Amino acid sequence: MRARLIVATRNLHKVDEIRSMLPNYEVCDLSAINNPPEVAETGETFLQNSTLKALAISRLTPELVLADDSGLEVDSLDGAPGVYSARYGGEEGNDALNNEKLLKELQGIENRTARFRCVLVLAQHGKALADFSGAVEGNILEAPSGVGGFGYDPLFAPEGYQESFAELGENIKNSMSHRAKSLEKLTSWMSEFLK
Amino acid sequence: MRARLIVATRNLHKVDEIRSMLPNYEVCDLSAINNPPEVAETGETFLQNSTLKALAISRLTPELVLADDSGLEVDSLDGAPGVYSARYGGEEGNDALNNEKLLKELQGIENRTARFRCVLVLAQHGKALADFSGAVEGNILEAPSGVGGFGYDPLFAPEGYQESFAELGENIKNSMSHRAKSLEKLTSWMSEFLK
Repeated sequence: MRARLIVATRNLHKVDEIRSMLPNYEVCDLSAINNPPEVAETGETFLQNSTLKALAISRLTPELVLADDSGLEVDSLDGAPGVYSARYGGEEGNDALNNEKLLKELQGIENRTARFRCVLVLAQHGKALADFSGAVEGNILEAPSGVGGFGYDPLFAPEGYQESFAELGENIKNSMSHRAKSLEKLTSWMSEFLK
Repeated sequence: MRARLIVATRNLHKVDEIRSMLPNYEVCDLSAINNPPEVAETGETFLQNSTLKALAISRLTPELVLADDSGLEVDSLDGAPGVYSARYGGEEGNDALNNEKLLKELQGIENRTARFRCVLVLAQHGKALADFSGAVEGNILEAPSGVGGFGYDPLFAPEGYQESFAELGENIKNSMSHRAKSLEKLTSWMSEFLK
């Protein structure tokens, strides 16, 4: 029987990615929980927000809960949008507004280095069991390009590539992304935990 | 004639690294400046500190001045030591104390992901001309290992390696480090600027 994981996020793109990268798990979204609460992401770091989300949902179910907090850190913006990545443009989860705002902030700025970071927290019975993180370095393009992925994927070219994550497509993105790296650590930890 | 760069740092290890990676430049340390001031690193980010250092020295010479602010960001320590990397153990530039403090903070913590980041600022006539940054992802080892490099090199294994930067040695480190990546961007920019 496959182990079940409840992913504590309302972002179904994240659930899809996690599901496609964890074929040996039954990955459920929040519809597995009755009336899941809105969790305010009041933390100042990915780890704090990911922990908030994992614990809030874990208090409502005996199952394993996985939270994912992730975002983009742009060096010449002193790490912005960071924990505000999903609401940078003023409207939670509006990718187009977020990308537009980012390009505006970087207008005329030559230094475009950035990284995507992901912090996963695994919880059960209201307690954090472990956390896992991953990051991918890259550069912000001058204009969005490509139709794959979500979030800032059309503007983010991973190091060594001219193309954005959105252009490179799911297979390449999921072989090197921040989320892929942290999920790899999760699965290695889980294989010990489930023994 | 090779272009001259004055490196605005008292850390001679940084000057050595920059010199070895910029063979086509005459790389000078602060002894090229009469009575260089102590620059208080009061910024909250690498970019802010690097800018402070570059501008302070650039006001004293008409030559090109390059500042380097860099450090280690550990994910499970919410980005510490960050801008405090050089004085984390309580004594500016004491690598042994810094490494010891880092290991103590990470005792019992499984998530060891981290990155080295470097932000270069190039200045002339008291103005910043450009900034360049680079980062390398990796993991913090359980114990220091190797004799090369400086700073946290004995504790930092770049992604894909089990060995620390200190073990891997100068050639491998300088092919992939945060400083190498940012210097690569600098030289590409300079080749246009010096035309």
